[in-house]
Amino acid sequence: MNKTITAQEISNMDRRYRSRLFNCISGYKTAILIGTKSAGGQTNLALFASLTHIGANPPLLGFVLRPESVERHTMENIRQTGSYTINYVSADLIEKAHRTSAKFPHDVSEFDACGFTEEYIDGVPAPFVSEASIKMAMQLKEEIPIKLNDTLLVIGVVEHLIVPEDILHQDGFADLSKQSAVVVSGLEAYYNCTPVTRLAYVRPDEEQKTLPI
Amino acid sequence: MNKTITAQEISNMDRRYRSRLFNCISGYKTAILIGTKSAGGQTNLALFASLTHIGANPPLLGFVLRPESVERHTMENIRQTGSYTINYVSADLIEKAHRTSAKFPHDVSEFDACGFTEEYIDGVPAPFVSEASIKMAMQLKEEIPIKLNDTLLVIGVVEHLIVPEDILHQDGFADLSKQSAVVVSGLEAYYNCTPVTRLAYVRPDEEQKTLPI
Repeated sequence: MNKTITAQEISNMDRRYRSRLFNCISGYKTAILIGTKSAGGQTNLALFASLTHIGANPPLLGFVLRPESVERHTMENIRQTGSYTINYVSADLIEKAHRTSAKFPHDVSEFDACGFTEEYIDGVPAPFVSEASIKMAMQLKEEIPIKLNDTLLVIGVVEHLIVPEDILHQDGFADLSKQSAVVVSGLEAYYNCTPVTRLAYVRPDEEQKTLPI
Repeated sequence: MNKTITAQEISNMDRRYRSRLFNCISGYKTAILIGTKSAGGQTNLALFASLTHIGANPPLLGFVLRPESVERHTMENIRQTGSYTINYVSADLIEKAHRTSAKFPHDVSEFDACGFTEEYIDGVPAPFVSEASIKMAMQLKEEIPIKLNDTLLVIGVVEHLIVPEDILHQDGFADLSKQSAVVVSGLEAYYNCTPVTRLAYVRPDEEQKTLPI
């Protein structure tokens, strides 16, 4: 049975119910940890699920920030240093990654509190998550205010990409599932992804061809 | 073995390789079909993989549009009517949904060419995909130009939500995997999602609790 929910019913929903529902209905999102360090040297690690592909040339990625939320330490640090890291959450890291959302005191690093190890490379002030297998160093490029609901689209360019060689195909395709990268639905449900098919670009009069995953 | 790719190496990459790589590395994305109708009555259906949660109150969803792409018919129609539908791609619809990306002539509707059925409800000019089980009617709210690479963040508000009752929990959680909603990685690889765990909000000194999926 289908349920049709109208704009009026959406508007009348209990606030928490609506938040859970539309965080799910907005689709699966890749679970990532964003690592930052303040100018004073305090590290921070926060779970995000709004990674957005903005473009490949240059490689630009966005994420959406709620300014009033606990995630604000992340943004303060990014503004101070221009640097952040994006670290994929694999299935074995879910519980530790989820714990970074707890409200730790300002002077506690989620790296320590949640059992992650800081890792650094030359030229990148922000800490990577040593336990993550797919990770990127990002340079802040632009903050775009979304006035409709006072959120912020934060866009950065990929400066370094660290990735296990076994997920890379010769044509540039990368199979994230080989490293058990997980997606989030809603605020807290984690899912594994398994390949179904990879389909070639198709012309209107052609039969569909598949590509290797 | 890990591979570290620097900004310089990224910049020197073959254009197609870079495009494939960073479309993958930007993470899994929920596969959706956007249905529109021009003021003159011509319908259009296009596959997108950039659905972004902007907020739950009001329920705002965004997608990223490359202005120069085949997707531009979608945006022309949205501007003419203010209306569009978002229809989830389930595993059984992958091949037909992928085919909407072929370059059909302007006067051909992807509904007909790819074997989808138009469905309408009162007050919504844009066509739904009858074969999809999770679908939304959207009203255009704002177009935000991303000047870094001439893309556009298109934001709409959910006006109607049509969803099978069996995926809805009492607290608002919706299990998309019960309807086999799929994600895309890169331009063309489709993945099924299976639940791993659902974790309650946790306080710093608490044990982690799970929630039912």
